[in-house]
Amino acid sequence: MDAKRDQRCGPERRPHVVILGAGFGGLNAAMSLRRAPVDITVIDRRNYHLFQPLLYQVATAGLSPAQIAMPIRRILTRQSNATVLMDKVESVDAAARCVVTGTRRITYDYLVIATGARHTYFGNDAWSEYAPGLKTIADATAIRARILSAFERAEVTDDAAMRKRLLTFVVVGGGPTGVELAGAIAELARNTVVRDFRRIDSSTARVMLVEAGAHILPTMPPCLSKKAGRQLEKLGVEVVCGNAVADCDDSGVRLANGTEIDSACVLWAAGVMASRAAKWIGAPADRAGRVMVDARLNPPGHGEIFVIGDTASVGDGGGLPVPGVAPAAKQMGRYAARAILDDMAGRRSAPFRYRDYGNLATIGRKAAVADFGRARLSGYPAWLVWNFAHLWFLVGFRNRLVVFLDWAVAYVRNDRAARLITGQYEA
Amino acid sequence: MDAKRDQRCGPERRPHVVILGAGFGGLNAAMSLRRAPVDITVIDRRNYHLFQPLLYQVATAGLSPAQIAMPIRRILTRQSNATVLMDKVESVDAAARCVVTGTRRITYDYLVIATGARHTYFGNDAWSEYAPGLKTIADATAIRARILSAFERAEVTDDAAMRKRLLTFVVVGGGPTGVELAGAIAELARNTVVRDFRRIDSSTARVMLVEAGAHILPTMPPCLSKKAGRQLEKLGVEVVCGNAVADCDDSGVRLANGTEIDSACVLWAAGVMASRAAKWIGAPADRAGRVMVDARLNPPGHGEIFVIGDTASVGDGGGLPVPGVAPAAKQMGRYAARAILDDMAGRRSAPFRYRDYGNLATIGRKAAVADFGRARLSGYPAWLVWNFAHLWFLVGFRNRLVVFLDWAVAYVRNDRAARLITGQYEA
Repeated sequence: MDAKRDQRCGPERRPHVVILGAGFGGLNAAMSLRRAPVDITVIDRRNYHLFQPLLYQVATAGLSPAQIAMPIRRILTRQSNATVLMDKVESVDAAARCVVTGTRRITYDYLVIATGARHTYFGNDAWSEYAPGLKTIADATAIRARILSAFERAEVTDDAAMRKRLLTFVVVGGGPTGVELAGAIAELARNTVVRDFRRIDSSTARVMLVEAGAHILPTMPPCLSKKAGRQLEKLGVEVVCGNAVADCDDSGVRLANGTEIDSACVLWAAGVMASRAAKWIGAPADRAGRVMVDARLNPPGHGEIFVIGDTASVGDGGGLPVPGVAPAAKQMGRYAARAILDDMAGRRSAPFRYRDYGNLATIGRKAAVADFGRARLSGYPAWLVWNFAHLWFLVGFRNRLVVFLDWAVAYVRNDRAARLITGQYEA
Repeated sequence: MDAKRDQRCGPERRPHVVILGAGFGGLNAAMSLRRAPVDITVIDRRNYHLFQPLLYQVATAGLSPAQIAMPIRRILTRQSNATVLMDKVESVDAAARCVVTGTRRITYDYLVIATGARHTYFGNDAWSEYAPGLKTIADATAIRARILSAFERAEVTDDAAMRKRLLTFVVVGGGPTGVELAGAIAELARNTVVRDFRRIDSSTARVMLVEAGAHILPTMPPCLSKKAGRQLEKLGVEVVCGNAVADCDDSGVRLANGTEIDSACVLWAAGVMASRAAKWIGAPADRAGRVMVDARLNPPGHGEIFVIGDTASVGDGGGLPVPGVAPAAKQMGRYAARAILDDMAGRRSAPFRYRDYGNLATIGRKAAVADFGRARLSGYPAWLVWNFAHLWFLVGFRNRLVVFLDWAVAYVRNDRAARLITGQYEA
């Protein structure tokens, strides 16, 4: 009905908004246009929207994939002006205003590019085989299988050196994902599985967090980053800062200072590279491949294209870059929707301003750090805030309730619900 | 403490019981020996016990893998006489009483073989690529991706013939698994996803169930098998009986009567072949590869070996073969445990007798058939019994509660919780 009313005073042909990627940015752009007199096409390679902040929980057997992933078309099922296509974008013809996928050409009046980012090995792509990264559901279940099968193989083997190697876990990268992974693996080894083995003592497992910079959680204030380090060490994680990875192969990693670490389970949580969007539209990119956009999130010369989320390099309006976090992507998605409506009405949009609601990182059971500018929390209070915030923002009531139950039961029983080894790691 | 007391009157070295496979049979054998003065080693290729009766729910996006799978070592964590090894059995040296895995030789005093069965293509192994079968978690998530991506690709394509082919689903085999899969796919197409698409009408999807024999559910009484057929047709499934599959390739299937069915999603639920156990121990096997055992579940000449569950071919004590169902495997597992204790005490065991508690098959939302000998149910009452029975027997309280919640929410909202496409079917 809204669409009909709007149409009376709008143009005859409704503008076509094509949105590439249904992460936080793309999905929020689409949802913000739900009453607008436009036709929306959302294109994504996958059929689900992923609540990425909890992906490390899937990788460490705490949650099931379906608990943090929802079909995109289910989320948009009642939004009659939105069509969802599962397809892979090959290129964009910005001059002809046209997106080219594997199966078709789709013309647009407005294009929102929200194709996100992946991890990068800084040119050492051969490392990906030995040190998998975490960005998709498939990544997470593969990492889960690698972690769990390391314990299984340690239980089977009679070779002491092999057992030690299997019980050494190395997480590369001290950002939020690395901290979360290292903390969760330490808890898994020290608490969850410790009574399940007969031939090994899983609590002797060595868990290392290797960070090239001087501090873990570099975007946090130094006092919180120190507290996070102490909380990690209390969980049994060895934190190694100021030491980059120099090499990585099937026996483990070698650090820049020459230390060799034998490990059968190296995980990569360092470095992020944006999607190929800059190449598609021929726009300038920063070192991480992100499209340099102006304060209206447009690339140079294309007022009809918006680049948002992890694919965009933009200032927050106060001289600092907008961080690559979910709240920023959501805000940019909503901004792009408003800017499209402004343009349709012939108005000039106000520049994008990032509103920072705070910065959270969880470390483990009852341990986290939270930075809200003036208020800084750590330990149990920060962990409660983290839990509350993540449950609150999980898409969909069902997921929220089931995840809450899983967490509650896991908390009481000190258990993890999804300890499955599937795929290549089966014996 | 029990173990200590028992040891005083038992032999000095405790007998070693090796159990191959932690399905319903193997797990029940291990758990029944929890207070026995024996050392138990459970060997399985996978790290989880699978509640196979609900596997079709994972394949049709109703449940997540972790809801029907539990780590074997978690189930046996408090059973101190049991060690779990995730390993692959290569062979058995029955003369030397020794199991050979990829990594080691394990000698035994008693051997329980419970390695189950897989689907078979009756010699046409090339069909497996086009018509995947359902036996493991990996099978189930692959089938889920195949079903869901057929709808996704139909929404994207502009080719009418291709769209028709993508919206044609063929399930081969009219046993319980085939009936469950066909019913669930029909419900998915007619109810769950119908409002989520814009370019296709998913309710026009064609779902066929092809059975070579004269009736679906051939182990059910004819009146129930007819009722099941009618219930399936009410859901929109075309039931084709008396027609085998003659060929199968990437365009679809050809039936024995020459009918060609274009389909992008053919699923295999016909035919079962036992594991290689008969070859391992050099014992006679029936046509389905099952080891022919005597009334004490021993293969000829090996009183120390028990073959149970889907791997065994045995009479029920009344002249009929024991069916390949979970309750039969459980009963055989418990029988093997008792027989081992009898043998240790120098007693001769009574022969195995199968106790048939009834036969259930579900068809869809509010539809099922149940045969309890004198009492025969169909429709809603049978469906309630089926739900209750399956929840009741799910291993572990957590799973039971979460699955119940998922089912309750799915029932009210007519939704399916785990609609994820992962792996090779991503665009």
